[in-house]
Amino acid sequence: MVAQESNVDVLIIGAGPAGLMTANWMARAGINARIIDKRSSKIFAGQADGLECRTLEVFRSFGIDGPWNSSNHMQEVCFWEPDGKGGLYRSARIPDTVKGISRFQQCVIHQGRIESWFIESIEKTSRGKITVERGMLPVSIEIDESKISEASAYPVSVLIKKLDEDTALPDQYGGKVANGLFRAFEGDQEKYYSSVEPTETDSSFELVHAKYVVGCDGAHSWVRKQLGIEMEGESTDYVWGVLDAVPLTDFPDIRHRCAIHSADSGSIMVIPREHGVVRFYIQLQETPRDPETQTESEKSSSSASAKSSGRVDRSRITPEFILAAAQKIFYPYKIDIRDVRWYTAYQIGQRVSPTWHKQLRVFIAGDACHTHSPKAGQGMNTSMMDTFNLGWKLAHVCNGLARSDILETYEDERKKNAYDLINFDYKLSRLFSGKPAVLKDSESEQASSVGSARISLQEFRRVFEMGKAFASGCIIDYPSSLLEYKPKEIATEVVDPEGGTALVTKYISPIATNVPVGMRFDTAQVVSQSEANPHFLSDLMPSDGRWRIVYFAGDFKDNMALTDTMTDIAAYLDSKDSLIKRFTPQGAKSDSVIEIILIHASPRTAVEWTEFPQAFRPKDNYGREDFWKIYVDDESHHNGHGHAYKKYGIDPKKGALIVVRPDGYVSAVLPIGADSLAGPVAEFFNKFMIDVSTRKADPFERWDLYGSDEVVQPVLAL
Amino acid sequence: MVAQESNVDVLIIGAGPAGLMTANWMARAGINARIIDKRSSKIFAGQADGLECRTLEVFRSFGIDGPWNSSNHMQEVCFWEPDGKGGLYRSARIPDTVKGISRFQQCVIHQGRIESWFIESIEKTSRGKITVERGMLPVSIEIDESKISEASAYPVSVLIKKLDEDTALPDQYGGKVANGLFRAFEGDQEKYYSSVEPTETDSSFELVHAKYVVGCDGAHSWVRKQLGIEMEGESTDYVWGVLDAVPLTDFPDIRHRCAIHSADSGSIMVIPREHGVVRFYIQLQETPRDPETQTESEKSSSSASAKSSGRVDRSRITPEFILAAAQKIFYPYKIDIRDVRWYTAYQIGQRVSPTWHKQLRVFIAGDACHTHSPKAGQGMNTSMMDTFNLGWKLAHVCNGLARSDILETYEDERKKNAYDLINFDYKLSRLFSGKPAVLKDSESEQASSVGSARISLQEFRRVFEMGKAFASGCIIDYPSSLLEYKPKEIATEVVDPEGGTALVTKYISPIATNVPVGMRFDTAQVVSQSEANPHFLSDLMPSDGRWRIVYFAGDFKDNMALTDTMTDIAAYLDSKDSLIKRFTPQGAKSDSVIEIILIHASPRTAVEWTEFPQAFRPKDNYGREDFWKIYVDDESHHNGHGHAYKKYGIDPKKGALIVVRPDGYVSAVLPIGADSLAGPVAEFFNKFMIDVSTRKADPFERWDLYGSDEVVQPVLAL
Repeated sequence: MVAQESNVDVLIIGAGPAGLMTANWMARAGINARIIDKRSSKIFAGQADGLECRTLEVFRSFGIDGPWNSSNHMQEVCFWEPDGKGGLYRSARIPDTVKGISRFQQCVIHQGRIESWFIESIEKTSRGKITVERGMLPVSIEIDESKISEASAYPVSVLIKKLDEDTALPDQYGGKVANGLFRAFEGDQEKYYSSVEPTETDSSFELVHAKYVVGCDGAHSWVRKQLGIEMEGESTDYVWGVLDAVPLTDFPDIRHRCAIHSADSGSIMVIPREHGVVRFYIQLQETPRDPETQTESEKSSSSASAKSSGRVDRSRITPEFILAAAQKIFYPYKIDIRDVRWYTAYQIGQRVSPTWHKQLRVFIAGDACHTHSPKAGQGMNTSMMDTFNLGWKLAHVCNGLARSDILETYEDERKKNAYDLINFDYKLSRLFSGKPAVLKDSESEQASSVGSARISLQEFRRVFEMGKAFASGCIIDYPSSLLEYKPKEIATEVVDPEGGTALVTKYISPIATNVPVGMRFDTAQVVSQSEANPHFLSDLMPSDGRWRIVYFAGDFKDNMALTDTMTDIAAYLDSKDSLIKRFTPQGAKSDSVIEIILIHASPRTAVEWTEFPQAFRPKDNYGREDFWKIYVDDESHHNGHGHAYKKYGIDPKKGALIVVRPDGYVSAVLPIGADSLAGPVAEFFNKFMIDVSTRKADPFERWDLYGSDEVVQPVLAL
Repeated sequence: MVAQESNVDVLIIGAGPAGLMTANWMARAGINARIIDKRSSKIFAGQADGLECRTLEVFRSFGIDGPWNSSNHMQEVCFWEPDGKGGLYRSARIPDTVKGISRFQQCVIHQGRIESWFIESIEKTSRGKITVERGMLPVSIEIDESKISEASAYPVSVLIKKLDEDTALPDQYGGKVANGLFRAFEGDQEKYYSSVEPTETDSSFELVHAKYVVGCDGAHSWVRKQLGIEMEGESTDYVWGVLDAVPLTDFPDIRHRCAIHSADSGSIMVIPREHGVVRFYIQLQETPRDPETQTESEKSSSSASAKSSGRVDRSRITPEFILAAAQKIFYPYKIDIRDVRWYTAYQIGQRVSPTWHKQLRVFIAGDACHTHSPKAGQGMNTSMMDTFNLGWKLAHVCNGLARSDILETYEDERKKNAYDLINFDYKLSRLFSGKPAVLKDSESEQASSVGSARISLQEFRRVFEMGKAFASGCIIDYPSSLLEYKPKEIATEVVDPEGGTALVTKYISPIATNVPVGMRFDTAQVVSQSEANPHFLSDLMPSDGRWRIVYFAGDFKDNMALTDTMTDIAAYLDSKDSLIKRFTPQGAKSDSVIEIILIHASPRTAVEWTEFPQAFRPKDNYGREDFWKIYVDDESHHNGHGHAYKKYGIDPKKGALIVVRPDGYVSAVLPIGADSLAGPVAEFFNKFMIDVSTRKADPFERWDLYGSDEVVQPVLAL
């Protein structure tokens, strides 16, 4: 017996970006969830700052706009290389973000602010029910195997120790800037746990029984260790320092992202940040090692080679030490710094967890599953995308809308991406840390020292450029599964535009030639039929846990076939056999589980609002009509034409039905028609959704963020 | 002696939009200011909802983005007219906002939310120093004429009574929706004052001595009455009802702005709002009158003509009464409502105050200066623009930067606009309230009933369309003054595009043919030289109290004359004679009073950052360089080309110097060159600015919103 016991549907361990993203979904889906963190204050091991396009799209889908509006947007990458005369020259400029890949571009901002926006959003949308509980240390975890197949059981028991303030405050946090150093080199997190002794009478213990547990507790994940999972991968001897400071310099590109290779002094990545700060990733060719075996005077002159093994002496990696390395690389440009905000050092390595869950009851995510070097800005983004993938599935299962089988897709979808990331990082980080072989002036004396250990800067630039699309997070393609309808017939071999001969298989229906199944449904501007407001289609499909069937009705005006199809579909939706009715609890709004959005291609002013069947402009229980489900691909008054049909590769004479998951990925592309809905679409949902048509709706199933009975209207026009 | 006495630089009476806009300036300028309101809670007499383009530009300039992001944007106006067969037809559609007049379009949102965003912003930017003090009733006001010429004196004394909760709560606020009714018809506000008796020992009294007082206390302004100013103008017998509710209707344009004229049942304006609500302005052809003289049964059947004089019985104008009038006008379309949020009724009239201040020490603004009908969405907007005009001038004087003469320009600049507004409203409201003469089917029997009292619907549509530019707030042209350098030579007669023969005189220099002096400096996209980020130029010139000299340096690369000019200007700015140094206190940042922004027209990548003279990328006291003062009119990576030179009518071979006021209006357009700065620009500033070069800066003069010593960087890219 423990003094306090409680039940919760989802227990999230760790309140970094991955944990907060999980909690964010739980808040929106009305799930009974808790999020705990062992630290007593919002400080963190890692200090990520890069936000990729897909992450920004996801933030937007949650209505979290602070990151994009307050961050520093990065526009351009400049490559600097040895000029063969002892100096540097700018060898190339490229856009930082692939043109047209997203409505957003890569940007950077302090991780702490991102966490604050998350926390604010979680508290608001959960109406105060979910808030980060700090100073809560998980002590043991147990899965009752006899209960794992019961939907209503709480098979996972986690014993939690509530820490007092002093214990919960990580000891590296004492006014010092470098609160991230301890992440870079393993070892000392365990000491927080060593003194914990569960006793039955101690009221500082709580035994939490959970349906599901999500471990978002970082690279040294306690949850992962409890599950007995070992990371796989390797590390290198390359050591890099990180410095956030305001630079004083005559280097002309200091406010651009720069990749600088010096001839022999190592490399630097420059990342311009908000409030005049610049982040520098600086290769440390010499690092102090093995402090225990050194005398004080030896420590101060320590300069063991990066190639030597043994532990790096973190206490002696100071901002001054890192800056000195930077000054050599920047030569002949001068650089000094002030306003040091943070610094750290890390040893490059790439590791992936081979297993991401135990019995589909305990999951791990984020850094607990994959670690790598930070320069491509992938760690925080990939971590959040892990739980963006997992969160809605857990919510669906907890809400009784879907069978727990869908949880299997989490590891399938995310682990492949983690391996891709690790491979990309392996290649890029070696090219970044290697000494350059090809110099501008091949007649120079340095050129003659080129050996096989040196790397090609053309190859570096090519890998960097190729990696941009991957790094954006926008080209992930989830495999065929319960949630991805990828029939063989639409498998399409695509020549990798960068690699030449390499081939990728995408699942592209001829009905929508630019909407690959398995990838995120890209956005396009459409205009509301009722109001003539221009909207990004993605803004009409916020992350609120709903599925969408986007019905591209075509240029139906004066087209008998398309008009008849619209009538047929409306009749199907109104009929008692409608798949939507099957999966929607009694009394809930008709669009609360699956929403139909109609996008036609006739001129807006050629069609009256009241010509559309009522099924597409449904009325709520109070008789109030929904004016925000019918859109048109037409000119707007002030924002031009979105050309959505063209962008998606849909023929206005034919139309298309696109099934979109709650996380915005395309599940299926099918021809329009009631038979598509009654046939393949219904079959698709039948495989994992639960017939809830006889169940009474509970309040959570309204998905209504606005409270009470207010009309939900997408106010954010362009 | 009063129990409590205090001094304040600026006392603002009334915390509606006009008062909050004043406080907003005070907060940003670091002025010692207070804002009081007699009501104990944030409710209000008027419930405006329309936001015009210029207001949205101003909000953006203060970093207040809630209104645009959360409001309903209006795209289209539909005109509905009698079809001659007893029904209605849509005679025309036009864009609601003039294309290209602003980066924003007209939008609508509940006034209460606008006030909340203001209050939040004021508290944040004043760092908690300025907050609305409620339940504070001004009882008397006195100006000590012996002190009015002393800059450091507090010549205005206002006695304030602190009300208890019950007294301060307006009695129309008791769960009833119609808290706006009392505004529409004069008379009963005085009762709040009648019981107040100042006594010397009562601690609920405070005597506030102010340098300046701003009366923003509404149409029945107490401040105005104390100054003995009578409004001038007239009222009509037209009575309109207002209803905010969710409509249930088969009218197809209910989510568009509509102007509906029925044949004989009156007119309606439809304004679609947020959360499914629609605002209806409904002409009441029959209104209940004179309740005292009627029996109960007479009251219930009251139907005195709108033409009859006498007081309207407000208590009997209910939502049901207003809806019944609407149903007749909408016929043959059906309409019902639910979720009534608010309703009121008003009698159309137009009045202007002939005087807007007393001895430049007490000012009135907003509804205290002008009242009119609400349908054109002008009241709240014009009121805020009054104090947007006054606020920075008061701040300049209080901060000792400018002589008090500049305060004279407030009435000169704003009163003309008020008269224009009243004339526009007079014309439009009569056409809106009049019965239509021209029917679609001129053969119909109704057409034969046309008399001289009936109005032309073509004329109505023409006036409406013409009025859109005026209503946007973007075409105001302030007259020649201390603050507007409008030499005769640049007076240019412009043919009114709508009127044909009517002529307007604008002050347009051939140097910048699209930058009229006296009008607001329109925005254009430019790209930062240091970061390649696209920005709206207006976002680089936030409302923080600074003047700007925008130096269009032209395509200077490889152009000897333009390059020499840049060198000359830099030398002038660095010299001890620089006009900027004269008006900037010692120790303050060099850009804290007048900021130089350079925009060149050479290709971005043809110029290195370090080629620009240091004067245009100044360093602060810590040696940190400013990377956000040099921009280029060039292609961006993801947001196209702004073509700013073309938009402004500036020749890239010649350039231009544009002096912009702290409120964004163009003060002067001059040729580039150090002699322009040393000559006309210096002369311009000499006339009203105070030489503060020997004064030590106080903290307020840093205009630094970010606190401490952080670098101020415009993070909001596109």
